[in-house]
Amino acid sequence: MIKLDFSKGGGLLPAIVQDYRTGKVLMLAYINNKSWEKTLKTGEAHYWSRSRRELWHKGGSSGHVQRIKEIYADCDNDTVLFSVEQVGGAACHLGYESCFHKKIDGDGNFTIAGDKKFDPQKVYKK
Amino acid sequence: MIKLDFSKGGGLLPAIVQDYRTGKVLMLAYINNKSWEKTLKTGEAHYWSRSRRELWHKGGSSGHVQRIKEIYADCDNDTVLFSVEQVGGAACHLGYESCFHKKIDGDGNFTIAGDKKFDPQKVYKK
Repeated sequence: MIKLDFSKGGGLLPAIVQDYRTGKVLMLAYINNKSWEKTLKTGEAHYWSRSRRELWHKGGSSGHVQRIKEIYADCDNDTVLFSVEQVGGAACHLGYESCFHKKIDGDGNFTIAGDKKFDPQKVYKK
Repeated sequence: MIKLDFSKGGGLLPAIVQDYRTGKVLMLAYINNKSWEKTLKTGEAHYWSRSRRELWHKGGSSGHVQRIKEIYADCDNDTVLFSVEQVGGAACHLGYESCFHKKIDGDGNFTIAGDKKFDPQKVYKK
């Protein structure tokens, strides 16, 4: 059984999320031990929301869950990589496939790369 | 000019590093504002080493530098993605192409995935 090192991040460590088919990096989120256990048990990605300070089942409200295909830990067990099937085709709450949609040039300026896959106002009806 | 949010991580934010040709995720490291500026200016990845507590020019001792091809910021500017050419073909200090070489099964056990590309004892002569 692997022993992840949650100590460096005060109980949290980063999880990189990658599309298992395309290799596109979709997002980065944080897990604590509880969300790690829930992810292993359910086969769907669970995180810790730093802003809401609660366990976060990704896709719980939008339906855009992330089905775990493979998980890797890094050499010193303080970061994990989730290879997932992204239901709905978009991981970003703004509607983009990837949260990494701001492409930065050598001067530090950015342009938007990628189209919106859904309208957040329709998906998150609250 | 993009304004990265270093505040959530006490002056640091995570940088995901991906091979620009294969899409393989190679490692995750942390940057502070100084390493961010050095990365933009030099076109080679610079990080903040949390263990050594110093600016870290990746490949400075091994020669295995990371040439920046593309940079992305995520939706809330608290994570960056470096798409790089990994000189030497391996990012991990243990000699593997990727730091994410421990594949975890549903029970939380792991196996090593990937071969060593170099012998760390020969590369890091100190």
